[in-house]
Amino acid sequence: MMEYTMEKLDELVGQIKPLDQDAMTAARERQNTLTKPPGSLGRLEELSIQLAGIQRKPIPEIEHKVIVVMAGDHGVVAEGVSAYPSEVTPQMVSNMLHGGAAVNVLSRYVEVRIKLVDMGVDYNFEPNPELEDKKVARGTQNIAVGAAMTREQALAAILSGAEVVEAEYAEGLDILATGEMGIGNTTPSAAICAVLTGKTGAEVAGRGTGVDDAGLARKAEVIDRALEVNQPEPKDALDVLSKVGGYEIGGLTGAILAAAAHGCPVVIDGFISTAAAMLAVTLVPQVGDYLIAAHHSQEQGHAIMLDWLEIKPLLSLDMHLGEGTGAVLGISLAEAACRILKEMATFAEAGVSDKDA
Amino acid sequence: MMEYTMEKLDELVGQIKPLDQDAMTAARERQNTLTKPPGSLGRLEELSIQLAGIQRKPIPEIEHKVIVVMAGDHGVVAEGVSAYPSEVTPQMVSNMLHGGAAVNVLSRYVEVRIKLVDMGVDYNFEPNPELEDKKVARGTQNIAVGAAMTREQALAAILSGAEVVEAEYAEGLDILATGEMGIGNTTPSAAICAVLTGKTGAEVAGRGTGVDDAGLARKAEVIDRALEVNQPEPKDALDVLSKVGGYEIGGLTGAILAAAAHGCPVVIDGFISTAAAMLAVTLVPQVGDYLIAAHHSQEQGHAIMLDWLEIKPLLSLDMHLGEGTGAVLGISLAEAACRILKEMATFAEAGVSDKDA
Repeated sequence: MMEYTMEKLDELVGQIKPLDQDAMTAARERQNTLTKPPGSLGRLEELSIQLAGIQRKPIPEIEHKVIVVMAGDHGVVAEGVSAYPSEVTPQMVSNMLHGGAAVNVLSRYVEVRIKLVDMGVDYNFEPNPELEDKKVARGTQNIAVGAAMTREQALAAILSGAEVVEAEYAEGLDILATGEMGIGNTTPSAAICAVLTGKTGAEVAGRGTGVDDAGLARKAEVIDRALEVNQPEPKDALDVLSKVGGYEIGGLTGAILAAAAHGCPVVIDGFISTAAAMLAVTLVPQVGDYLIAAHHSQEQGHAIMLDWLEIKPLLSLDMHLGEGTGAVLGISLAEAACRILKEMATFAEAGVSDKDA
Repeated sequence: MMEYTMEKLDELVGQIKPLDQDAMTAARERQNTLTKPPGSLGRLEELSIQLAGIQRKPIPEIEHKVIVVMAGDHGVVAEGVSAYPSEVTPQMVSNMLHGGAAVNVLSRYVEVRIKLVDMGVDYNFEPNPELEDKKVARGTQNIAVGAAMTREQALAAILSGAEVVEAEYAEGLDILATGEMGIGNTTPSAAICAVLTGKTGAEVAGRGTGVDDAGLARKAEVIDRALEVNQPEPKDALDVLSKVGGYEIGGLTGAILAAAAHGCPVVIDGFISTAAAMLAVTLVPQVGDYLIAAHHSQEQGHAIMLDWLEIKPLLSLDMHLGEGTGAVLGISLAEAACRILKEMATFAEAGVSDKDA
């Protein structure tokens, strides 16, 4: 892991610019000439303007759509925080490789390419061109008793996640979505949320993929213990990631940073993806402007995360699956927003009387 | 209009059956075998089960997607209730024929075919194969001073709207969406809402396509006056439609009835479409089960309508354009829901350990 240096992270972070205000102004002005009452397409209009600022062009375009689905395992599963065993992580990765998971179905529908990445699954997969190997380690350590990983491993997770997006960008990338698979990963995500927002375990813990009341109480207690044992420093994203995070979470943080560095919008999914986004914003506050919150997950604590990020989700469909399922649907709304801006006729073109005529 | 008889309406109404409970049970059972925690796809799961019941098959399918966009003018515009002049109705119909309106852009994206229908525009269009001529009259009368139309015209609007969908059904139709164009049509829609829910003009009136405060107050007063002058009978949908409705609203009511009669789900759009759905449900309460509310329009009063119908919208994007723009996006979610049910792998197929394993 010699190649993953702080200099590389600083370089990545340094590439992230503010949004292009001129492009946003042009997009806003064009919206107001289109054959509809100004503002009547609500958040689709706002979204098109944000996308213009991110892509740095007056009429943003979405053709190359990719979702990175990053997988990792979690030592904290030993504490009984998940309704499913860790073996389900590689099983679900395999299911995704065969096209049978929910994220596959929705990605086929929205025509989004899936980039599946092993960031730290506790299983040695056969080499497979469809599964990118960025494994930092076979699962994290148990955060209830110590750090999840070393600081070097945290840096490796972020920078190798960034590499995945750099490679995608080279092939053409207009919008990125984030997804994940990792049994137990709502616990580190909740822990990250607790550290950054100052909330307690009970406030941020949710039922994940379906723990019962006893499991929920255990999870809240485990989160509090992880913070107590590790004492993560909220202003230091690498410290938070290394002490209470996960490899797929770090990978997504890097993916988000790399997308922002390349002027590429990022549609974030639910609880885990949003934890990764919080770490990215802790590193570079500017990254927040590049984020599109796809949906409001049913996972308790997600609303706290979105409030902290000051972003408002597009959808609220009572989903809480993860994988990137919400983010893929979010991409379809972003694409619809772009098409509105690009394809609608103006009042002048259509010969329609404007309000003030 | 001799052919539009009460017998025909009774016949249409008589075809509407309860949803198929066996298909719904089968869909629900299949959802619980798919590789995800049960319920984790939230409203997409519920939607797939509803669609199974409507289409009367365990795995519903959506291939042939049509939106009917019905247009009409409104005598009540004379009261100054709209920010745009009536001439915009035919202009926007023309814009739709040329593919430049928002509903065209979104329909191309979601691959929904648009069926554009002149139900009562105050303009004589040149014959055009893309514009179905079902004109009942050139605009309604001013509801603030008398009935919008005769009872015979109301019946004609409903049954000719139904004919449009019957013809579509003959060509293959898996899901219908409703849209409309008609300057001034939020006022009759609000009036219908007021009659059926017992609310006042001020409670149901909204800003439509953008009236100012004075316009809003005028609109509320006009609605109250329309109810006072016309005294519509809330239990008699034809009476309500004829006294305070509109031709495109009646056409959509008929379209919704015909879709339900053929076991076809109906995605309703915003304020005007929902008023049409309220009339359909007044005629046949069972129709409510065939409705999918696409979105929560920003138009004040829409929430009152949705509550009355006891349906919960899928999207909340601060949209208030009409045309069917929200409904088209709703179709994409319905299609996503069907694909999940059809294409996801089961735990057994994927060799994934289930929660209880």
